Amino acid sequence: MKFLKTLAPVAALIALPSLGLAQDDAPAPGVNAATDTVFIFNSLLFLIGGFLVFWMAAGFSMLEAGLVRSKNVTMQLMKNVALFSFAAIFYYLIGYNLMYPLGTWGIEGILSGVWGPAVLEAVGVTADAADDYSYASTGSDFFFQLMFCATTASIVSGTLAERIKLWPFMMFIVVLTAIIYPLQASWKWGGGFLDEAGFLDFAGSTVVHSVGGWAALAGALLLGPRIGKYKDGRVTPFPGSNLALATLGTFILWLGWFGFNGASQLAMGTVGDVADISRIFANTNAAAAGGAVAAMILTQLLYKKPDLTMVLNGALAGLVSITAEPLTPTLGAATLIGAIGGILVVFAVPFLDKIKIDDVVGAIPVHLVGGIWGTLAVVFTNGDATLGAQLYGIVVVGIFTFVVSFVLWFILKMVVGIRVSEEDEINGLDMAELGMEAYPEFSKG
Amino acid sequence: MKFLKTLAPVAALIALPSLGLAQDDAPAPGVNAATDTVFIFNSLLFLIGGFLVFWMAAGFSMLEAGLVRSKNVTMQLMKNVALFSFAAIFYYLIGYNLMYPLGTWGIEGILSGVWGPAVLEAVGVTADAADDYSYASTGSDFFFQLMFCATTASIVSGTLAERIKLWPFMMFIVVLTAIIYPLQASWKWGGGFLDEAGFLDFAGSTVVHSVGGWAALAGALLLGPRIGKYKDGRVTPFPGSNLALATLGTFILWLGWFGFNGASQLAMGTVGDVADISRIFANTNAAAAGGAVAAMILTQLLYKKPDLTMVLNGALAGLVSITAEPLTPTLGAATLIGAIGGILVVFAVPFLDKIKIDDVVGAIPVHLVGGIWGTLAVVFTNGDATLGAQLYGIVVVGIFTFVVSFVLWFILKMVVGIRVSEEDEINGLDMAELGMEAYPEFSKG
Amino acid sequence: MKFLKTLAPVAALIALPSLGLAQDDAPAPGVNAATDTVFIFNSLLFLIGGFLVFWMAAGFSMLEAGLVRSKNVTMQLMKNVALFSFAAIFYYLIGYNLMYPLGTWGIEGILSGVWGPAVLEAVGVTADAADDYSYASTGSDFFFQLMFCATTASIVSGTLAERIKLWPFMMFIVVLTAIIYPLQASWKWGGGFLDEAGFLDFAGSTVVHSVGGWAALAGALLLGPRIGKYKDGRVTPFPGSNLALATLGTFILWLGWFGFNGASQLAMGTVGDVADISRIFANTNAAAAGGAVAAMILTQLLYKKPDLTMVLNGALAGLVSITAEPLTPTLGAATLIGAIGGILVVFAVPFLDKIKIDDVVGAIPVHLVGGIWGTLAVVFTNGDATLGAQLYGIVVVGIFTFVVSFVLWFILKMVVGIRVSEEDEINGLDMAELGMEAYPEFSKG
Repeated sequence: MKFLKTLAPVAALIALPSLGLAQDDAPAPGVNAATDTVFIFNSLLFLIGGFLVFWMAAGFSMLEAGLVRSKNVTMQLMKNVALFSFAAIFYYLIGYNLMYPLGTWGIEGILSGVWGPAVLEAVGVTADAADDYSYASTGSDFFFQLMFCATTASIVSGTLAERIKLWPFMMFIVVLTAIIYPLQASWKWGGGFLDEAGFLDFAGSTVVHSVGGWAALAGALLLGPRIGKYKDGRVTPFPGSNLALATLGTFILWLGWFGFNGASQLAMGTVGDVADISRIFANTNAAAAGGAVAAMILTQLLYKKPDLTMVLNGALAGLVSITAEPLTPTLGAATLIGAIGGILVVFAVPFLDKIKIDDVVGAIPVHLVGGIWGTLAVVFTNGDATLGAQLYGIVVVGIFTFVVSFVLWFILKMVVGIRVSEEDEINGLDMAELGMEAYPEFSKG
Repeated sequence: MKFLKTLAPVAALIALPSLGLAQDDAPAPGVNAATDTVFIFNSLLFLIGGFLVFWMAAGFSMLEAGLVRSKNVTMQLMKNVALFSFAAIFYYLIGYNLMYPLGTWGIEGILSGVWGPAVLEAVGVTADAADDYSYASTGSDFFFQLMFCATTASIVSGTLAERIKLWPFMMFIVVLTAIIYPLQASWKWGGGFLDEAGFLDFAGSTVVHSVGGWAALAGALLLGPRIGKYKDGRVTPFPGSNLALATLGTFILWLGWFGFNGASQLAMGTVGDVADISRIFANTNAAAAGGAVAAMILTQLLYKKPDLTMVLNGALAGLVSITAEPLTPTLGAATLIGAIGGILVVFAVPFLDKIKIDDVVGAIPVHLVGGIWGTLAVVFTNGDATLGAQLYGIVVVGIFTFVVSFVLWFILKMVVGIRVSEEDEINGLDMAELGMEAYPEFSKG
Repeated sequence: MKFLKTLAPVAALIALPSLGLAQDDAPAPGVNAATDTVFIFNSLLFLIGGFLVFWMAAGFSMLEAGLVRSKNVTMQLMKNVALFSFAAIFYYLIGYNLMYPLGTWGIEGILSGVWGPAVLEAVGVTADAADDYSYASTGSDFFFQLMFCATTASIVSGTLAERIKLWPFMMFIVVLTAIIYPLQASWKWGGGFLDEAGFLDFAGSTVVHSVGGWAALAGALLLGPRIGKYKDGRVTPFPGSNLALATLGTFILWLGWFGFNGASQLAMGTVGDVADISRIFANTNAAAAGGAVAAMILTQLLYKKPDLTMVLNGALAGLVSITAEPLTPTLGAATLIGAIGGILVVFAVPFLDKIKIDDVVGAIPVHLVGGIWGTLAVVFTNGDATLGAQLYGIVVVGIFTFVVSFVLWFILKMVVGIRVSEEDEINGLDMAELGMEAYPEFSKG
């Protein structure tokens, strides 16, 4: 994704060809059919992309609810609904204007969002007034960007499932969506120093997915593994309680990703833009398929039986891998980039277990490992990318996110505690923290 | 939502600016690029909005299937599939032409729909002929409006779950979708007396949601509570059998609501319209988030544990609350309006139990209480609204829907009976009425 | 669906009216706002249609996972994720260029796809270059067409569930998606001899659905029924393990079908096209409703209890039935065509059992019987259709698909074996072939 608001002058240039005819005809102000059409197409892209990425919140919920044990399902559902809702509020209050400061950076820029009408155009804005804003409706842009922020938060909840306390988790989400995500996103998409350094990240392999992964990793280190996960030098598998839900969640995420990557083209009003979006849709799908097939074949070879959860995570890793550059690869290259993502997951999951980092749903292999790989893979298909700039972006965003998250988790651990009691963990968070089972009528095997 | 068909002259005026260029160039008839583009955008809005609102039928199904006990899940699924299908047929046969009479009101207008080709344009209609209809494809409008009618019906099934007979319920749905919903909807959206009285209801807090709520309330009063729900002065909770499904259903509804409210703008062919739709998307999301967060915090304060089903219903109440006016609020106001909706649900659910009205899924708190609140809240952000007109609309629609529904339920109760036998209720409707369990292999706890 | 690539000249003619204004004004090359808008609308239609049909892959997964017994759910999920992923790769490698050969038919045309950049336009293609391709983005067309190929594969997995080996099944899918589907599809949609013979199949009642059905039938005959299904002259019902999932799957398919049929209009850039798409949306919905209601009433009459799985399959059969001609029927005719599809399912399911063809989810009644009926029904509403041409298409496609599939299944049976061992079948494929249960914590009843 390119950055939006500061792109306005560029966008005007892009739109110029379409304006040509109209300008020759010297239409009355606000009656420029061609420009209006471009504005509508661009805004529509954000709206469609936005509702598809919103849908990913449901995907994460179902994936995670399916991969935890049934005694923690209600809690996982609660966290996912709550984190999206808190993200919506705090990204509005602080994050959006921190990411795309209007005029003034710093505290003034932020406050213009919280206390001012900065986010949305006036009702029934005329074409004239809309021109003052940018090449698409600001409201549509906000809607779309919010979903990316919420996605980052969704990634964290899966890793830390089955043992983290609800409210401390929510406190972390508030800081993540209000400050951590928007701040580092502004370095690239807000036209900041990473963008100027030539770092390329089309739809967020690093800016979204690795950030979620780093935040999750910091939390997992401080939180520790679930009771009984690593005992006597052996790794005990805790099978997910509902693989149908997990598969549904994966399909939902796959669907949502068309909006995630496709609408990150940020414009649909020209032939070139819509053709690029089409490439992106096709490549995104190819990468997911590549990741799934690679994980399926590899687990067959390694374990003699293909592993459904690996196949699901392989598809997701393929999606994460193509996200940094879904436009320039050929379909074959996209399939390969996704396949390598799927292969990395199959090795990263047991590696994490080996170093006793307990990631309940495999979010770190998928989003962090896949995100790093995808960001590096840009150099293979996009001539503008340099390995140096890509590494620079990965490292800067990684260090920032990991350190700030670690400090924040550490403070939360010291001040309020982040882990439930041993008894509550064994009984399940659902009864202990919520008093409500997800499947009260189905006896446990 | 403004009313559509009779809006045609107004729409022509709205479209005029975009026509300006084309008219100066005096294009041949049917070769007006700008007008055609507006027509296409408007129709596309209805199609996208329509399939999103269709998706809400799946949302209600999953929400309700998740909140009933497992012995009644098959029945709840059956009712939801069936009510949507019956609604599709009877809204076509009678409802649509009752709501938007073509030329003649009364029996002739209705018959023109049942026996005439009134609903759809001819195949491959030319731009010239299309102009005769309106500013968007009639087929797209029918498709969109049908989904609103079906939504109204979906609301009823949740309240009356676990004890109502299948076929009498379907008979009610037929009358609701053929007559009750379309008739009162025409008062506002068909350009009737409520519209002329200045009553404002953008996407149907009253016209859709409260109508579903009133119809459900009338049914609940005549049907009585489930066996054992209110015993010895205490309320026995009957926990939902599958909270993952209920959460999925809520996310589906949340997604569908972008189409519900957004496409109720009824036009997307100008900069102002698409910017308004963007505002609506952002506000709709904000209200849902506000409702969820408010219900989560409030149940934490009241009960020391946040309640997932309240959080889900809080999000839905937020959505219902913003539906009467999703355009004019700021994001902050939308969040607050939704939050108040969420708070009302938390108090309305135990209140209904106190007066022994048994609403299985909380549809009355969400859709009726939330709908009334949302309709009143219009006065805070829309200068054209008056408290008098809003109350007038709420009361007129409420009295009409409640009285007609009550009479209809009463007749059904007298003539065919609406409640299953005590034995069947205890054994569950699935085996008794359908002979088929939803989860036959999972033993009951 | 009309065929795409060879349609380019026709498309130019269709677009001409919109070009009129622009050509009079003699705009500079690549600055033709009206043409560009048509191109964008057409591509957008493919993208929206494509992601909706993608979503059907999730629908088939949930439907089938809900209708198999819990011991085979993981396998059914695996097959559905895997078949979609393999289809994506092999349709890209071979199928797409086999179906729509660029310039040269035969091996050269195919190789141009595998080794050449034939599928996608260049990044940031200009309007000039895009004109060389066709009237819409090639990438969007590929994305859309791929989903149809994958749908065909999805149909097969349901019939053969609970007893077929994973990898032989995947081998069949590879041949089906690389060769069988694309080859016969080219006869109609690639401008081949069936198209020239006047055979009409708008969105694929025959080309997609019956092909899936014939391939499934051939497999079912060679695979044989599940152990215990037909014993001592009686049919033992094996109830689906999760009807909520099955219902969800049906709603997903219903939603996806709007893209399936609607985007098969293949153009959205004129008033006539978008009005036609609107007709198609409305008719598609009407047929599904008709099928559901017919199956519900008929099972009530036949068995005294409406049967949810029949109602779901009735809705799906309604959708299949309208797919050959969703445009020309009136809403009433569409409802009837769908209703007859629903009725056929209710009779076809027990008939298949009578002749001991074991179709686990009812895919043959829905997709093959419904597909044949829908293809024949074209003659009732489309004046261009002849019974002879429709029968010709049905028979040619049927014989080709059935024979090739049968031979392929037979070879697989001889060479690698297609059926799991008796012991594995009784224990369930999940533990035997995958070592992973879908619902490990829920004890079996």
